[in-house]
Formats: sequence, structure tokens, C-alpha cells
Amino acid sequence: MRLIDEKPYSPGLEGVFAGESALCQVDEGESGLRYRGYAIEDLANHAAFEEVAYLLLFGTLPARKELDRFHEQIVAGFVLPESVQRMLHDIPSEAHPMDILRTGVSVLGMTDPDAADHSHEANLRKAIRLLSQIPLLIAFAYRRAQGRPMVWPKPALSLADNLLRLLTDRQEDEVGKAMGHLLNVSLILYAEHEFNASTFAARVTASTMTDLHSAITAAIGTLKGPLHGGANEAVAAMFCEIGTPDRAERWVRDALGIKHRVMGFGHRVLKKGDSRSLIIQRHAEALSRMCGDTRWYEMATTIDGIMQEEKGLFPNLDFYTAVAYLLMDIPRDLYTPVFVCSRIAGWCAHVIEQQDHNRLIRPRAVYTGPSPQTYVAIDRRA
Amino acid sequence: MRLIDEKPYSPGLEGVFAGESALCQVDEGESGLRYRGYAIEDLANHAAFEEVAYLLLFGTLPARKELDRFHEQIVAGFVLPESVQRMLHDIPSEAHPMDILRTGVSVLGMTDPDAADHSHEANLRKAIRLLSQIPLLIAFAYRRAQGRPMVWPKPALSLADNLLRLLTDRQEDEVGKAMGHLLNVSLILYAEHEFNASTFAARVTASTMTDLHSAITAAIGTLKGPLHGGANEAVAAMFCEIGTPDRAERWVRDALGIKHRVMGFGHRVLKKGDSRSLIIQRHAEALSRMCGDTRWYEMATTIDGIMQEEKGLFPNLDFYTAVAYLLMDIPRDLYTPVFVCSRIAGWCAHVIEQQDHNRLIRPRAVYTGPSPQTYVAIDRRA
Repeated sequence: MRLIDEKPYSPGLEGVFAGESALCQVDEGESGLRYRGYAIEDLANHAAFEEVAYLLLFGTLPARKELDRFHEQIVAGFVLPESVQRMLHDIPSEAHPMDILRTGVSVLGMTDPDAADHSHEANLRKAIRLLSQIPLLIAFAYRRAQGRPMVWPKPALSLADNLLRLLTDRQEDEVGKAMGHLLNVSLILYAEHEFNASTFAARVTASTMTDLHSAITAAIGTLKGPLHGGANEAVAAMFCEIGTPDRAERWVRDALGIKHRVMGFGHRVLKKGDSRSLIIQRHAEALSRMCGDTRWYEMATTIDGIMQEEKGLFPNLDFYTAVAYLLMDIPRDLYTPVFVCSRIAGWCAHVIEQQDHNRLIRPRAVYTGPSPQTYVAIDRRA
Repeated sequence: MRLIDEKPYSPGLEGVFAGESALCQVDEGESGLRYRGYAIEDLANHAAFEEVAYLLLFGTLPARKELDRFHEQIVAGFVLPESVQRMLHDIPSEAHPMDILRTGVSVLGMTDPDAADHSHEANLRKAIRLLSQIPLLIAFAYRRAQGRPMVWPKPALSLADNLLRLLTDRQEDEVGKAMGHLLNVSLILYAEHEFNASTFAARVTASTMTDLHSAITAAIGTLKGPLHGGANEAVAAMFCEIGTPDRAERWVRDALGIKHRVMGFGHRVLKKGDSRSLIIQRHAEALSRMCGDTRWYEMATTIDGIMQEEKGLFPNLDFYTAVAYLLMDIPRDLYTPVFVCSRIAGWCAHVIEQQDHNRLIRPRAVYTGPSPQTYVAIDRRA
């Protein structure tokens, strides 16, 4: 940090506290990553994604009855209003899936039954509806572009199992179940991560006391960027470019040699490694063995080893997630939209928290422009 | 500011430098408000809004030929793609104008000819198109909801004159010309104001290197909030509630007595008054006299005097702007969309500046949540 007018200035707000939150503790030390006090390992090992979404939105883990009620509300939300379906029919077939999702949530904001109600309770209802509607938006647009008929969620299935079905038509056999389980873990790991750029954008937007859908629209547009949600897709693209595990070492050493960025390593906050990476790695390995297809996993461990050895960099959550999603046959340009299916829980919890204890987020800029200029009439300008 | 972990923490990032910008100097001292070095008074007195938009986007005031070329590009942008028009036909008639605008810009992002090009040059082209398209989006949705046929811009008119025509069907008589001139001044005053919440939201979004339309969508949703762009509309609502100038003193003293917030006063950064307010006040007064309708202006000066005397608070830009917009017969729920027609210049310039010198905006949160919790299986939860 340098000082400007005797005040500390940190580009990108790195290390700067921008607000308060009870949602998530990001600690590289003993505490690790915790959602409302619960260790990410415990949640990933034992919970359904719905429990974690409930925890983030309501503050406590649900008892069985509360979870059943929450599941009923999610099932009730599996509806896309006519106006949204028409919009999805009208969009150009080459549209970016994240642009579609941003637009779809913006339209949902206009048609939401609580559109004019900005209360805490209404925001919770909107959040639960978005948990249901976002997988539908993604599947509807994707299947339409593919010329495949829409598949609607089954009420008896979990959000993770439904999402897998909607995107991949996966059967409910042993492998399908294992994949649904892995997707559930992945959704838990992606659900929340403090003041990352998309969450922070949602909070800045929410801080003018605008509606929840405006804040979520902002977050989706932010997550779209290659420096944020685009990373797992970029890792998968790298794996596909490398092709086979035996080519991985040469590829990554060549990349390092020409200072080409290897995707999926390092993190703004987590300099000593990301505990979520170990969890998803373990699951990706198990699924690779179950599927009898270990090429992506082998390739990944080769790259991982070289990056730690040569650069001291650790894989972030996106790295082994790409292995898992490749195995599941999730279309690559839907990786970031799948991220939204999860992070929507954290975003909505942050918007609600921001508005419950609001303070307008309005920082200052360091002025770097010209000194005062004399105005010259247009016809006397050079 | 208080210290947390020995680091300063300022709620709402008040007074905290969050980045660098050459666009705007907000100084309560001698320098006043300047866009790229030019005093706001000079720009408001002498320039067309198009010159100011050019200055913000390109860094210098245009010579005559450059301005002519810029005007041609704006005229060429006066087109709404079919898919956007269909979306505007499909929206519920009670939709909020800012929700429509947010959705419209999101759709424009999908259909933009440069959708996949995120270069500096492409961003400038997108910015110029948005300068043209935003007034069309507002007018199209508004006139449709009113059952009035669409009016398209005249190539020979300025952006301000076209905007007035699209929203109010104002004739080009003497009064109409004076109103167009005042709207031009108003657009200049609203065009840019450093790291206000909507601009900062746009920059946070842009900092993941996402597309320009995502950042502008975020900004529109942020401006919608009553703590930001909704203020001039709220001032006009207050004026209409008061009704006549003779009731103003009693109304405002009663409001202060019950600690009811009087809208249009104070500013997060400008504690000693807003130089833009004096400019718009002067113009609002002149137009009131010209129209022979001074009731809003008289009411405003009465409230202004009491607020300075009793609370030491100065009117901000929104206060006398409401007087001007009431005289012009701009529909009250379009005040914030009109703000967008102006601020789009500043937003786009900030997005381009952010991405030209990018650093991901990712701050930290002060953790205020529970201490570590032991995970309990769902059927053993209380």
C-alpha cells in the first residue's frame, strides 16, 4: 500500500476491508474456509447443496422439517414465466450463455411477484425462486440452441441431480448418481467466497437500496469475465488443447518458458493453497476411476506437480473442477452458468445482509488526469 | 475510520481510494468539479452535451470536424434491433422503467455487432451506440405503455433536443428551444461524477474483463436505487405533495420536526455544497419566468432557505433539477432513465479506463459471523 494525501491506497482494493459480513470466513490458517462458522470440509462431506443454501440465506442449518419446506419452495419455483420463455425464443442462437442468463434474470426481475417489495422477507422469496429458475434458464436456452426439447426438473430429485439431468440427460444409474453427488459437492464449494468481485459488485449495487434482481444481474455480468468465473472453462480448454496426459509435462514447461499463463493456479486471497481444491481433487479422482477414464485427472496432477515445483503456485478451485465437469460431459460454455447455479445462494445472502445493515458504498478515486484546462470555443480548437 | 487487524476500515468505503481515474476531479475547494481538467461551469455554459461525451470518451474536446463525425456516428446508432423491439413489446405494462432499461441494455449486449470484441476501439463503438440507443429504449417503452406511436430522432437535432421530443412531443418553438437548452445543460451536469455507486459498480464489474454491456447493466441497476438515481424523482414527488409555494415552509418545518428526510439535500462527498446545483438553479429560475410558472421554483427556494438555515445542508444537483424537469413535463418515472442518457457517457469512459489499466477489484470483508461450529447431522438438529 502506498499513501496518497496521507491515506493508504491499495490498487484493486487488495487487502482493504470494504464492509462487514457474517457469511463466510476465508482464512489461510487453521480456521480454513467456513460458511457461517461451519467448515467447508464438513459441509462438502455431509450436506446437500440445499442445506448449504439454506444456511447462507437463513443463518442456521435447517432441521429436517425446515429442509423439506425449503425443498417444496424450490420445487414450486420450477416455472419460467411466459415472457421469459418468449425472450429465450427471440435471442440470437450465437448469444453468450452468460449474456442470456444476465438478460433472463433481468426479465425475471420485471415479472417477479414481489417485484415492488424490497423487504427482507420478499428478498428471501426472490432468492429461493432464483435458486429454481437459474438452472431452468440455462437449460432452456442451451437445449433450444441444440434443437433438443426442454426437460423439466423432477420434484423428487435434488437441485444437483436435476441440474445434471437438465444439462446432460444423464441417467440415474450408478455412474449418474456418483456424478450427481460430485456436482452437489461442487455446488457447495462454489456457493460463497466473501467479497470476491461478483459478490462485491452485487453489494455495491444493493447499497443504493435497489432491487435484488438488479444486484444479481450485476453479479452475473461480473462473473462472466475471464478473470473470475471464466476460469474453470479456461482450464478445460487447456486440458482439451493438451489432449493426452503424456503431452502435459512438455506443454506446461513450454508454456512456462514463454511466460504463457497456466490457468487454474493462484488466488488473490489464498496464497498458500485453497482447501476447496483438495476436496474437489479427491472427488475428481474417484469419479475418474469409476468411469475408467483417468486421462484428465492424470494430466491435471502432472500440471499441478510442475506448477508447485517450478512456481510455488497451488491449484485453485477451478482446476480440478474442470476434470470433474469434463467427465460429466457438461458443455464447456456452461461451466460459468453452473457456477451461477451455486453462487446465487451466496450472492442473495450478501444482498440481503447488505440491505439489512445498509451503508451506501461510495469510495473516492485518486485523480490522475490533467491540471485545470482553459475552455476554448469549438471553432478555435486545433 | 477504525482499525481492524491494524488496518483502517471505513464503512461504505467513505473516503477510501478505490482506484485511479483521469476523468473527473471532485473538489470542494477552488478547483471545483472538472471533467478531464475542464471546469463544469465552462462546459455547462458553452458546450453541447455531445462535446462533453466526446471529451469523456476520447480525452479531449472535439474540433468541429471531430464533433461532426461523432454526431454522424450517433445518428447512425439511432436504431433498435428487432430482438430488442420484440422484447419491449413483451414486457408487462407495469414494469419499472429502470428494469426495462436494464433488460434492454442486456439484450443490446447480446446483439451488438461487436459483442465478442472487448478491445478499446470496440468499447468506444459500443459506447457511442449506447448514447444513441438508450433514449430510444426509454421512449419506445414509455410511448408503448402510453399507447402513443413511437417518434424517432431527427438527425439534424442534438441529443438533448431529440430526447425532449421523444419524451414530451415538445414543439420547436421558443419555449421548446429553451427547454432543449436546459436539458442539454442538465445532461452535462449529470454526465460524470467520479466513483459514485453506479460508476463504481460498473468498474468492479469491468475489472473481471467482462464485456462493456455487463458493466453498464450493473450501473443501471445500481442507479435505480432510491439512495442514488431515484433522488430527483423523489424531490419532484415531494414538490407535488406540497402542491403550492405558500405551503412549503410549513411542510418542511413539520418534516424536520418529525425527523422526516427532506429529499435533495446533502452529498456523501460534497459537504459544503454542490457547484452543479447553482448552475441548474439559475437555469430553472430563467425557464420558470419564461414559462410564467414559478410555483415549483418558489417552493424550492423556500425549502432551500430553511434547510440551509436549520440544518446547514445544501441542495444537491437533484433538487433544482426536479424544478426544471417538472416545467418540461418529463414524466416523473423517467427522471432516472434521463439520468442514464447522460451518465452513460461517464460510465462507458470509466469502463474503458478500468480495462485499459486493469486490476481486479477484490477487497476483503470484516468477519462478524459465528465462531467455528460443529456440524451436526440433519436428523439430530434441534
